[in-house]
Amino acid sequence: MMNKEQYIESLRQYKPIVYLNGRLVESVVDDPMTRPHVNSAAVTYELAFDPMYEELMTTTSHLTGKKINRFTSVHQSTDDLVKKVKMLRMIGQKTGTCFQRCVGFDAMNSTFITTFNIDRECGTDYHERFKKYLEYVQENDLMIAGSMTDPKGDRSKKPSAQADPDLFVHIVERREDGIVIRGAKAHQTGMINSHEMLILPTTNLGEEDQDYAVACAIRVDAPGVVHLFGRQTNDNRRLDGDIDTGNSEYAIVGGETLTVLNDVFVPWDRVFMCGEYKFAQEYVSTFAAYHRQNYGGCKVGLADVIIGSAAAMAEYNGVKASHVRDKITEMINMAETMYNCSLGCSCQGTKTEAGSYYVNTLLANTVKLNCTRYMYEISRLAHDIAGGFIATLPYEADYRNPETKGYIDKYFSANPDFSTEERIRMGRLLENMTGGTALAESMHGAGSPEAMKIMLYRESNIDHKKALAKKLAKIDKITKKDEEKDYVE
Amino acid sequence: MMNKEQYIESLRQYKPIVYLNGRLVESVVDDPMTRPHVNSAAVTYELAFDPMYEELMTTTSHLTGKKINRFTSVHQSTDDLVKKVKMLRMIGQKTGTCFQRCVGFDAMNSTFITTFNIDRECGTDYHERFKKYLEYVQENDLMIAGSMTDPKGDRSKKPSAQADPDLFVHIVERREDGIVIRGAKAHQTGMINSHEMLILPTTNLGEEDQDYAVACAIRVDAPGVVHLFGRQTNDNRRLDGDIDTGNSEYAIVGGETLTVLNDVFVPWDRVFMCGEYKFAQEYVSTFAAYHRQNYGGCKVGLADVIIGSAAAMAEYNGVKASHVRDKITEMINMAETMYNCSLGCSCQGTKTEAGSYYVNTLLANTVKLNCTRYMYEISRLAHDIAGGFIATLPYEADYRNPETKGYIDKYFSANPDFSTEERIRMGRLLENMTGGTALAESMHGAGSPEAMKIMLYRESNIDHKKALAKKLAKIDKITKKDEEKDYVE
Amino acid sequence: MMNKEQYIESLRQYKPIVYLNGRLVESVVDDPMTRPHVNSAAVTYELAFDPMYEELMTTTSHLTGKKINRFTSVHQSTDDLVKKVKMLRMIGQKTGTCFQRCVGFDAMNSTFITTFNIDRECGTDYHERFKKYLEYVQENDLMIAGSMTDPKGDRSKKPSAQADPDLFVHIVERREDGIVIRGAKAHQTGMINSHEMLILPTTNLGEEDQDYAVACAIRVDAPGVVHLFGRQTNDNRRLDGDIDTGNSEYAIVGGETLTVLNDVFVPWDRVFMCGEYKFAQEYVSTFAAYHRQNYGGCKVGLADVIIGSAAAMAEYNGVKASHVRDKITEMINMAETMYNCSLGCSCQGTKTEAGSYYVNTLLANTVKLNCTRYMYEISRLAHDIAGGFIATLPYEADYRNPETKGYIDKYFSANPDFSTEERIRMGRLLENMTGGTALAESMHGAGSPEAMKIMLYRESNIDHKKALAKKLAKIDKITKKDEEKDYVE
Amino acid sequence: MMNKEQYIESLRQYKPIVYLNGRLVESVVDDPMTRPHVNSAAVTYELAFDPMYEELMTTTSHLTGKKINRFTSVHQSTDDLVKKVKMLRMIGQKTGTCFQRCVGFDAMNSTFITTFNIDRECGTDYHERFKKYLEYVQENDLMIAGSMTDPKGDRSKKPSAQADPDLFVHIVERREDGIVIRGAKAHQTGMINSHEMLILPTTNLGEEDQDYAVACAIRVDAPGVVHLFGRQTNDNRRLDGDIDTGNSEYAIVGGETLTVLNDVFVPWDRVFMCGEYKFAQEYVSTFAAYHRQNYGGCKVGLADVIIGSAAAMAEYNGVKASHVRDKITEMINMAETMYNCSLGCSCQGTKTEAGSYYVNTLLANTVKLNCTRYMYEISRLAHDIAGGFIATLPYEADYRNPETKGYIDKYFSANPDFSTEERIRMGRLLENMTGGTALAESMHGAGSPEAMKIMLYRESNIDHKKALAKKLAKIDKITKKDEEKDYVE
Repeated sequence: MMNKEQYIESLRQYKPIVYLNGRLVESVVDDPMTRPHVNSAAVTYELAFDPMYEELMTTTSHLTGKKINRFTSVHQSTDDLVKKVKMLRMIGQKTGTCFQRCVGFDAMNSTFITTFNIDRECGTDYHERFKKYLEYVQENDLMIAGSMTDPKGDRSKKPSAQADPDLFVHIVERREDGIVIRGAKAHQTGMINSHEMLILPTTNLGEEDQDYAVACAIRVDAPGVVHLFGRQTNDNRRLDGDIDTGNSEYAIVGGETLTVLNDVFVPWDRVFMCGEYKFAQEYVSTFAAYHRQNYGGCKVGLADVIIGSAAAMAEYNGVKASHVRDKITEMINMAETMYNCSLGCSCQGTKTEAGSYYVNTLLANTVKLNCTRYMYEISRLAHDIAGGFIATLPYEADYRNPETKGYIDKYFSANPDFSTEERIRMGRLLENMTGGTALAESMHGAGSPEAMKIMLYRESNIDHKKALAKKLAKIDKITKKDEEKDYVE
Repeated sequence: MMNKEQYIESLRQYKPIVYLNGRLVESVVDDPMTRPHVNSAAVTYELAFDPMYEELMTTTSHLTGKKINRFTSVHQSTDDLVKKVKMLRMIGQKTGTCFQRCVGFDAMNSTFITTFNIDRECGTDYHERFKKYLEYVQENDLMIAGSMTDPKGDRSKKPSAQADPDLFVHIVERREDGIVIRGAKAHQTGMINSHEMLILPTTNLGEEDQDYAVACAIRVDAPGVVHLFGRQTNDNRRLDGDIDTGNSEYAIVGGETLTVLNDVFVPWDRVFMCGEYKFAQEYVSTFAAYHRQNYGGCKVGLADVIIGSAAAMAEYNGVKASHVRDKITEMINMAETMYNCSLGCSCQGTKTEAGSYYVNTLLANTVKLNCTRYMYEISRLAHDIAGGFIATLPYEADYRNPETKGYIDKYFSANPDFSTEERIRMGRLLENMTGGTALAESMHGAGSPEAMKIMLYRESNIDHKKALAKKLAKIDKITKKDEEKDYVE
Repeated sequence: MMNKEQYIESLRQYKPIVYLNGRLVESVVDDPMTRPHVNSAAVTYELAFDPMYEELMTTTSHLTGKKINRFTSVHQSTDDLVKKVKMLRMIGQKTGTCFQRCVGFDAMNSTFITTFNIDRECGTDYHERFKKYLEYVQENDLMIAGSMTDPKGDRSKKPSAQADPDLFVHIVERREDGIVIRGAKAHQTGMINSHEMLILPTTNLGEEDQDYAVACAIRVDAPGVVHLFGRQTNDNRRLDGDIDTGNSEYAIVGGETLTVLNDVFVPWDRVFMCGEYKFAQEYVSTFAAYHRQNYGGCKVGLADVIIGSAAAMAEYNGVKASHVRDKITEMINMAETMYNCSLGCSCQGTKTEAGSYYVNTLLANTVKLNCTRYMYEISRLAHDIAGGFIATLPYEADYRNPETKGYIDKYFSANPDFSTEERIRMGRLLENMTGGTALAESMHGAGSPEAMKIMLYRESNIDHKKALAKKLAKIDKITKKDEEKDYVE
Repeated sequence: MMNKEQYIESLRQYKPIVYLNGRLVESVVDDPMTRPHVNSAAVTYELAFDPMYEELMTTTSHLTGKKINRFTSVHQSTDDLVKKVKMLRMIGQKTGTCFQRCVGFDAMNSTFITTFNIDRECGTDYHERFKKYLEYVQENDLMIAGSMTDPKGDRSKKPSAQADPDLFVHIVERREDGIVIRGAKAHQTGMINSHEMLILPTTNLGEEDQDYAVACAIRVDAPGVVHLFGRQTNDNRRLDGDIDTGNSEYAIVGGETLTVLNDVFVPWDRVFMCGEYKFAQEYVSTFAAYHRQNYGGCKVGLADVIIGSAAAMAEYNGVKASHVRDKITEMINMAETMYNCSLGCSCQGTKTEAGSYYVNTLLANTVKLNCTRYMYEISRLAHDIAGGFIATLPYEADYRNPETKGYIDKYFSANPDFSTEERIRMGRLLENMTGGTALAESMHGAGSPEAMKIMLYRESNIDHKKALAKKLAKIDKITKKDEEKDYVE
């Protein structure tokens, strides 16, 4: 396993092409605009060495029997699924932002399952290839970017029907030593400070979309790969000091990129799907269920910070009203409901034929659908408690300017037990965590709400529910077959 | 274990004094107003003999090693806690109403814990007494009414400060052979078709309230006990036939009574708390957490029926709009969120010092708070889908009247694939399950919303959350002590 | 104008055939099951003679210049539209239920407009006929049932495509002296205690549906008319006394009927549309807009009573918590928002070409859509405040039984400043107003939610909104034509 | 009246001291960081000369009979109140942001009323002074900053009890020629591009707070006045081009300042309250009601743009799903409900004793309370529809960089009928309007939610509602006095 420093150093060995604000980033580690993103991910390495969190952060490889960082593991029990949720919440509490590494974690777990299933039906050997790759990842404690989302182009058309064939990643050449792929992946969390990217398809595919059925792994600096870094809310503030950014140590959300793949070569030992279009849907929904499980972990960790921040703001403002307590309680209920949902879908996880453990799909989809609403509501209540000053605070530079610092200290003072600087810092943290990009991430990360709704309807047995109602209304009897459809076993 | 028929027969051996609509009920089993309540509870006996549900419905006594009905068991693992939730959901699906037996189940489990704790501190022997009683319950497969809620009188006053001392159950005499108690218990679910009632306190108590610290068990027909049966929504309809009641086999909610205790004698071997007022709060909150856990089981079973009923209504009406599917999906999400919350608090249960398993208190409180909102919202969406006819349907007698039956068949027909009677029956079922008493039960059963909010705030570590925020805002460092306060272990 | 007593006497001159619970109702006025419905409507007559409410309850006929009951008037100004809303709220406050007379009021106002428009385009003389009829209604101060909703059968089919042609009212014969109609009208509010019914179409019609394009007026006891009275929540309780019904003077909701028209003859002077199918859609949406306006009047009157009842319950219970005040305030906000919406759509009313005043359609649709949600939420909060006893109260007969009255008085006492009977009566009122039929009426009266949503989308100028956004995003310029599309003039 | 250009030129005559990001702003008009704020306010001047909007934008001075900009007028009718709402919505549609000028408008209207009331009771001559000042404002078409909100310090203490007496503006000297004031005003919308500021108190005051009872007018560049400009979400983006800012012509929200008053002299003819502490509460609540009325105007204009932007985004994305239409409809309902509430409280406005018109206080408070929730919900739905790309778009500079522009054009293309640049521009506009500062403004502008809740409870007649319920429950009769308490007249 790598520790924090080793991880950061390891990134210097990679030379990804990253564009940001019209310029090339020379060093992802040293650039002040990207460093906080490195710091967020580094926490996943740092805490693996903290005895207090050892049980959550590390586990034993089922391949090698060695101790590994949990983020590189394949789940071996429902307890592993529960620990994943707890680990994510705990790191969210410490970073107050996305720490990026769960995407690759989930991509690896779904690849583990899908390669097994493809092999069984198609006689291929993807699963063995992938296990070797997984061992390599575990041994080197690599950070993997899970690369699923294609740009998608016209949402009303399938990949092969797009005006431009490149709007979904596809195979442009099958060679003796490997394949060549072209296209792009969008919204790529943690990409520029990852070591490798694990590519998988983004949608169900038909026979005509065979070239789009591709899964494989490449280095983030493989020839032909170009990254465009996304602009986030208040991104530039970190160039001005450490107050206005709110959370100066860590980044806002995941540092998403558009990652362009200009005819990138992938050797066969890194190819895990190549044309088996029938397995795309299962692949996507497996990944999605794992990934939706997470939001009752990491986002609840963030919610804990927002709740704490709002409670502190009320204290700094000198407000002791009963409505503050009531609002805090509502925030707690939303946070713990999301957490509960993640625990529920984890403890109801089942063993796959590949031997790993998988969450309950129906239940996992409740997690994220609730998240797309609760994080907005939690943010709204935090704004309510914090007061209007989070929207009208002067600049950090004015606070550092001796001509104006006195005015700010004097007129933004409130509860005399706390300094004005404390109050401003807390206000800026709250602003950071409840603003534009952070909210949009809660909405669309791991899929947009309608994607969950489709799964919830599909996974819920409506016919069984209708049979139950008919029996009670004395319309029909429940047949033996209806009984077997029972949700609970 | 008793089966359904044995349970019903066993009730004939009990002669409780029950008043209902101004008259004495001669036989709880045979009276058409109370029989459906018997039927609901009987399902808990019937399914224990169904091989399909054996794993959920039965377990092994940790006292005797014999196979027992789960409703008489003390939880031995988190798996038992999870199975409880699944069992409740399944029975809720089959009855579409309250089946009453969980209250005693929870009362026994909390008495098991609290008697152990009292004994350890006070040197009493309540726990042994209770274990003997529990064995008696298990051996005879008795139905126990959990009797907690006192009438409470003026909500702003403690028990001993009430104008009338009887507004909370209290000890009026301590005799050599036992105690004499007086007062009443309100909202007593399943009381008249239970065998015994297990009395426990309803609120935290001070030193001045010592006589109110009483727990004990009595027969429901013990001398001095009088039951007043509560009036429910559309109660009389069951006298008119089987359509208008909606769910003619089973009851609406739990058949709650006001049970008056007129100087009732209790022998010492049935007394489990007698003056140890300091343990009242723990007793109450333990019972409450167990009981709040349930609502993500039984109410989700009911929600399954409501969802199925709404889906069937849309079909019967001939409506195929996208909004119906969207509303059904929202209902599913609410139902599965409640279920998830119950699973979450169960899988995070912990072993008590008494050796049994107890749910996570914080997480259990989310279940019921969500339920007080979701069941109303689910009912609202069901009304939306069903259409206005659920409010204006003619009487069953008019449907049976040859002069008017033709009009009803003709003019209430809709989708030609279904008969008018099917449509009416389904409409009446929906009316039954989304009406007054059913909603109020979702609100106040297992405590009113503010009770959950108090627990959520109390159990959540706000100081830890503030520390997290301060660290990220670079105001304070998190101390070692803060770390220890971590929610996740 | 008739006063209350004259209205009640006048009903004795009508002999409608009404079936209720398998029997014929001999006298709508004297039958204890229907009398409360008569009482509700009678308030609209009674208050017209109360000087305090004269300005709201009466106006001047634009046809005769005489003072008339406002319920028989055609709106002459936006002030009339505003006064309508205030009148409805005030009567709702006094009855706590539907007083039925607004349906005919709105039917008359929409018929006034549509007949004018048909005549102008088709050269017919419906408008003059209708004015004569209106004068007759005003002179005799008649109560008119607005009869719009057809049974509709299979919701996916148009009237002429139904398996049974009678599922929408249609013309079966055109004679020299009039027409013969057949079919039924469902959900007929106030029908059995009205004098006449004013029939109008319920949906937009195509050329093949010409026979369904019919509007006309008939007596409620015209030959061939049969009424089936709908069963309401807790309907029978009124036979047992005056407590359990909650609001014993007045009815629950509007006493809806299925009214069957078995080949009913209508003379030409009572026919106001006969085949002009193109005007059906306008007719329906005009009626609907007027009718949706009402819900921010009458339902807010009911909400006032519910709020007052909840506030009283908190007092009776002895609860003085801050959360009660907060919930009451939320209820007030919802009530006043609905009222505001009704005022807004009224003050933005416009003069029609027929000379009368019509509400703003877009704005009127917000009223009812909010109502379908807010009345459920207000009821939920009322349940929350009232406490669980509204679901478990004993029967009135038990309260009148000397053997049990003492128990009830003793154990349901709370705040000593109030009697137990007061507390029970208030609980029963709350139960009455927040239960099944009352909620369903808030949902589906004046059309189901999706009907409002269709209108809101249609009436809102989305293209104009897109143009505004494009201009600010510097994508397009707003053209002169876009400017003209401005919502505000 | 001034036109747009005249207004902008006029600002050059003012030399306010403005600090922003650690530097002094040399020219508010020319500085790229402040110019957009000037542009927003300038629209209120520009449209006054557009014949299409003349009726909304201008009116006749009741003092001089001359045509004036409506923003300088005192309301003479309920029609004026309604036109104010329509004007605000229309300008909101054109700017997509706060145009700042309503605060002074409302401050003048409340000063008009309160000075009249003070004079009547205290024999002072503030009203005449103010009328002269108002005439001066009207003649010169000045932009007035309404300066109410004090920094407030410790929220649990009154002004005179604060540790620092300057945390509320107060009189430090009463001289023969005028007064000297000290303190600061926070959240000062439009301040730096206003001509004058009209100061009024921010809270109710006791006898001990007499020196805090001060209202007066000063130039924004009066000696002793220092402005600190607040930092807004993504403020710096406007320095990088015109795409990333989203709405490059206009500002985000109102350009709020902390405005420090360092012993500022005010001559007597500009003093409108000086010690009459008893009138502070009335002054504040009058201003607040006027100001809360606005939010159903301006914010609905913004909502129109957000709705249009979301609808355009769905089109650009190529999404034609039914859920988009449903979400758009929900947004429309929220927007029109707010608008309706503003219209309702306007049409129910009443004539004050000073002769001007004032909105209905109770109803005006619903507007803003709904706004604090609806604008968040509208933003959430807009994010849902727009898709994740609003959170991960590359920088404008990367779009202008020839090396990366091609990637962006290619991979962010969607519906082929629209260019990628259009899609990006629309995404950036949506980001601008639904982000941090904009949301917080919807929450706290015109007072925080709890302020509305206090007013809603206070203005609602709970006792009357209780009397209504008691009458229906047959507990009490309504007395004559109760009747008089009727809400509706």
